[in-house]
Amino acid sequence: MTNPSAAMLVIGDEILSGRTRDANMHHLAQVLTEKGIDLKEVRVVSDDALAIVAAIRALSGSYDHLFTSGGIGPTHDDITADCVAEAFGQSIDVRDDARALLAAHYERQGSELNVARLRMARIPEHGVLIDNPVSVAPGFQVENCYVMAGVPSVFRAMVESVMPGLTGGAPLLSESQRFLVGEGDIAAPLGKLAKENPDLSIGSYPFHFEGRYGTNIVIRGTDAVAAKAVMDVLREKFAGEMI
Amino acid sequence: MTNPSAAMLVIGDEILSGRTRDANMHHLAQVLTEKGIDLKEVRVVSDDALAIVAAIRALSGSYDHLFTSGGIGPTHDDITADCVAEAFGQSIDVRDDARALLAAHYERQGSELNVARLRMARIPEHGVLIDNPVSVAPGFQVENCYVMAGVPSVFRAMVESVMPGLTGGAPLLSESQRFLVGEGDIAAPLGKLAKENPDLSIGSYPFHFEGRYGTNIVIRGTDAVAAKAVMDVLREKFAGEMI
Repeated sequence: MTNPSAAMLVIGDEILSGRTRDANMHHLAQVLTEKGIDLKEVRVVSDDALAIVAAIRALSGSYDHLFTSGGIGPTHDDITADCVAEAFGQSIDVRDDARALLAAHYERQGSELNVARLRMARIPEHGVLIDNPVSVAPGFQVENCYVMAGVPSVFRAMVESVMPGLTGGAPLLSESQRFLVGEGDIAAPLGKLAKENPDLSIGSYPFHFEGRYGTNIVIRGTDAVAAKAVMDVLREKFAGEMI
Repeated sequence: MTNPSAAMLVIGDEILSGRTRDANMHHLAQVLTEKGIDLKEVRVVSDDALAIVAAIRALSGSYDHLFTSGGIGPTHDDITADCVAEAFGQSIDVRDDARALLAAHYERQGSELNVARLRMARIPEHGVLIDNPVSVAPGFQVENCYVMAGVPSVFRAMVESVMPGLTGGAPLLSESQRFLVGEGDIAAPLGKLAKENPDLSIGSYPFHFEGRYGTNIVIRGTDAVAAKAVMDVLREKFAGEMI
């Protein structure tokens, strides 16, 4: 059985200009791996409507789930909701359920629910709201697309709101071992083992340690026994060179 | 005059599984911004030949430059060079210039230039080598595509080898100011200024400070005087609320 697949779309000029280091991709990748959903592709695009709409269409059509981060705040450069509506051919306007959430929140705060803040209540017509326990302004789901905020604390809270409703596959387990052996010296047996075990993903990551070359081998799969058996072959072959 | 455009393709299962946090995207974004080359899109794909070839074709066709990171080592999962050759319709084999670099390096080290390591001398027929002062195995350029290693220290060294040969545009300058004003209260004047100044990119980034909401405004453009003039309008309007 194959695990469900997913893609992520990160929206925002601040990542592409190098001003901000994206933190949401790494977080979502870890959460999805634990859940047994395979993150297959990530795209980062700027605050440009054509680019956003094209990416939403391509990714939502190619994978089981699409998660977006960024562009749902109150300012002029927050255009994600309108782009999602366009990508899925839905109309969009301020919606009563989202407006009610914001109205109650700003009344508690003693702030005004002005035109700019009302922008955060613009939800595509068939969107289902995603709970935001941090700052109230909701995310939303349209078909297989989950639209979430870019601020990391809010993104994480929305991911937690969404995950229980998703069906995962078998969680991916991993077995790691560091060898004080250069990648070039472990590559041949590793390639042979990879060919013999197509259900396992065998990765090798080089490192330096006290002036010597080493390789961290990570074997991932849903079958922990098989992953350990393959690693044991390497452990036996390079018995004197493990750290 | 428009600045040259660029895209980046990050190749590697380890990013998508959440095992590794990508560092190369943020570095390249900063270097390109300084150079006056606009990074417009980043994609992250797994070690999958079909996905890599499709992404190289799409990105190299849509932007002036494409930079890739990852997948050019000696192991079975290093398939980037073959994918680049396929994407550009070139043949690929071990090339004498790259083999000579590796042979000299491993002779100095007293290691064997075995079949696995020779994989790193596979270069598309019209590829131009990119210098690797860290660990010798070269990157290469094919048409508008610059193929570089995923290990951050090597990636950075290769970026330094490539940059002097690229023509940049006017470097993007930025003017920042933090206001103790919620995004929802600054959005209206900000939207008006953005509309009046289409050559400037005006971004707003919310933050929390001692229990209050604040907004960091970043104005980017090639005209520093214009950027400062726009920020001064905001500084005057929110004179008592700057930090």
